[in-house]
Amino acid sequence: RYEHILLGHGSGGQLTAELIGKLFVPGFGGDVLGALEDAATLSLSSGNGVHGPRLAFTTDSFVVRPLFFPGGDIGRLAVHGTVNDLAVAGARPLFLSSAFILEEGLPLDDLRRIVASMRAACAEAGVTLVTGDTKVVDRGKGDGVFITTSGVGLVPEGRSLSIHSARPGDRILVSGTLGDHGIAVMSVREGLEFETVLESDTAPLNGLARTILETCSETRCMRDPTRGGLSSAVNELASASGVGVELEETAIPLRAEVRAACEMLGLDPLYVANEGKLIAVVPPEHADRVLGAMRSHPLGRDSALIGDVVAEHPGMVILRSRVGGRRVVTLLAGEQLPRIC
Amino acid sequence: RYEHILLGHGSGGQLTAELIGKLFVPGFGGDVLGALEDAATLSLSSGNGVHGPRLAFTTDSFVVRPLFFPGGDIGRLAVHGTVNDLAVAGARPLFLSSAFILEEGLPLDDLRRIVASMRAACAEAGVTLVTGDTKVVDRGKGDGVFITTSGVGLVPEGRSLSIHSARPGDRILVSGTLGDHGIAVMSVREGLEFETVLESDTAPLNGLARTILETCSETRCMRDPTRGGLSSAVNELASASGVGVELEETAIPLRAEVRAACEMLGLDPLYVANEGKLIAVVPPEHADRVLGAMRSHPLGRDSALIGDVVAEHPGMVILRSRVGGRRVVTLLAGEQLPRIC
Ligand SMILES: Nc1ncnc2c1ncn2[C@@H]1O[C@H](COP(=O)(O)OP(=O)(O)OP(=O)(O)O)[C@@H](O)[C@H]1O
Ligand SMILES: Nc1ncnc2c1ncn2[C@@H]1O[C@H](COP(=O)(O)OP(=O)(O)OP(=O)(O)O)[C@@H](O)[C@H]1O
Ligand SMILES: [Mg+2]
Ligand SMILES: [Mg+2]
Ligand SMILES: [Mg+2]
Ligand SMILES: [Mg+2]
Ligand SMILES: [Mg+2]
Ligand SMILES: [Mg+2]
Repeated sequence: RYEHILLGHGSGGQLTAELIGKLFVPGFGGDVLGALEDAATLSLSSGNGVHGPRLAFTTDSFVVRPLFFPGGDIGRLAVHGTVNDLAVAGARPLFLSSAFILEEGLPLDDLRRIVASMRAACAEAGVTLVTGDTKVVDRGKGDGVFITTSGVGLVPEGRSLSIHSARPGDRILVSGTLGDHGIAVMSVREGLEFETVLESDTAPLNGLARTILETCSETRCMRDPTRGGLSSAVNELASASGVGVELEETAIPLRAEVRAACEMLGLDPLYVANEGKLIAVVPPEHADRVLGAMRSHPLGRDSALIGDVVAEHPGMVILRSRVGGRRVVTLLAGEQLPRIC
Repeated sequence: RYEHILLGHGSGGQLTAELIGKLFVPGFGGDVLGALEDAATLSLSSGNGVHGPRLAFTTDSFVVRPLFFPGGDIGRLAVHGTVNDLAVAGARPLFLSSAFILEEGLPLDDLRRIVASMRAACAEAGVTLVTGDTKVVDRGKGDGVFITTSGVGLVPEGRSLSIHSARPGDRILVSGTLGDHGIAVMSVREGLEFETVLESDTAPLNGLARTILETCSETRCMRDPTRGGLSSAVNELASASGVGVELEETAIPLRAEVRAACEMLGLDPLYVANEGKLIAVVPPEHADRVLGAMRSHPLGRDSALIGDVVAEHPGMVILRSRVGGRRVVTLLAGEQLPRIC
């Protein structure tokens, strides 16, 4: 269909899934990679019968534009993104690496601000940045700064969250309003004005994730709905687990400003990126208790029960709409919202 | 002195050292980062008296131009670079991550070739790529593809290599000819022609490193002399250990083509990057045995004893030249050889 990389290959939607599923996964091979979890979970024991804790390992590059936006900047995002992929995999995030690709001409003051912001974000999340790298590309071959963070953490014995383990009957919880990050970035980019400044939700979710797992050790899985938004997160869950998902439109928390901006920009908030939200899939009998625990956490005050896992239409996500209709929520097509993270 | 990023900040020489030492290290803080080793070595034990093996963790971005060059490509380089930083830290490399920043318009065939090459390089080095990321930037905001690999490995109990532990009397060994990688890349870029094609030395050094450590458990430290070449590697060693280094010019292995190309391009081979070489610092009584072991390894056939650690002129590297003179080998100044890895 195409022989070159398109912007949409970075959208977190259909094209990204195709590139990963058809080029990267078969190209690299391997079961751990092929499972497509937020973080890889790895055994370090040398087969001597000792079952130590397992290592979680994950990576993300950040190419967001502009570098500074309401509620955050590329540095905070780079720390939170990697902390959150470890956290939703059930790991305790411990150590980060950070590799910088700098464009010739970048003001050193911008770099200082970004580093200060990363340091604060690491402190807040309780992780330590232990190694890094610095490359420079000539003017016009980069865009200010790109940051790639990787992270390692420990997964307690006996814990196994996976996007492959949702079962019919499970309930789907979200930790707050959707779309704040993507709309905050788009708003500065497009010069949109609101009565209040809409801020990115970027935040470290390891505390909230721990609360959830302490409340319900049977939690099936968690995900951070970043690029591609809620739609990608639940579609990936539905495919991986071979189940259907039904979402209740009226239950999905949305800020009024986000709703308004989405209408203005012609965007669907289900496809807009979040950087401080997670979804949790839990057995039905634990849903209320988990919801209560989430709401009592500062980063989960607007948590809501937004849907169910069903046996019908495996691999497919259905939205039960405000007016009683049902529509399929497909993966994002095209290249909506490039360079949002 | 400057308020913006210069190409030289990526050279691996003086400007890189300044940026890391004055901006990144104080900005991020932390002892592990501040030690500036090739890989961070981390304890995972939770203070319960159990001393498990320690984790080594490292990262590098790759922005080499062109993407394909004699002897390798950006993908092989990205695998080897991270494997080698783990290996010279004394770790057994185990798992890699790989984050891609793709420029809109990149031919998918180029990406397929790169992925195939990375897979082969992983297999050769005995490591598994377990997690990744894919971002796309708009045309003119990247340069084909940038790859950031991170890696984790295990450091056996009791092993502690460090650039801080060289002592007067130690001998310095190098595993083969210098400058092959940098000159191979520069030659294609500048259209230089030689009678034989000069190839990059890019190679995984974990086998050779293991051989060295098995031969001499008292090895003080190893380094891979990448950007900034031998000069940066030994200068960093001299500063970190508070010792002097004396190098014997006639002992340094150089290919005739590299020597010729360096003369043509006005380069000093001591400053040119290597991607498949290591230096090892060993106590004098072990030097011959280690040299023998290195020479018996396929990747160390041209190994040589090139210098000594001395108590005099701490922090300074002196080259005893062919004609009997002595000159200071400083860190690379300026921006020679940009985007070599
Ligand atoms: N280039 C790649 N090579 C190998 N695996 C990849 C690559 N890109 C992504 N993956 C894998 O695909 C899965 C989804 O990746 P993706 O980056 O969409 O997840 P994420 O990091 O949770 O989301 P985001 O990047 O939006 O934060 C992960 O398991 C990841 O390891
Ligand atoms: N941006 C950065 N932030 C924090 N630490 C950094 C940064 N860049 C480099 N470092 C640290 O500085 C030291 C030297 O880094 P450098 O990248 O020169 O080493 P290397 O990876 O061995 O060389 P190369 O990148 O040429 O392969 C390492 O300990 C690394 O962790
Ligand atoms: Mg994720
Ligand atoms: Mg992520
Ligand atoms: Mg490096
Ligand atoms: Mg190194
Ligand atoms: Mg390196
Ligand atoms: Mg990702």
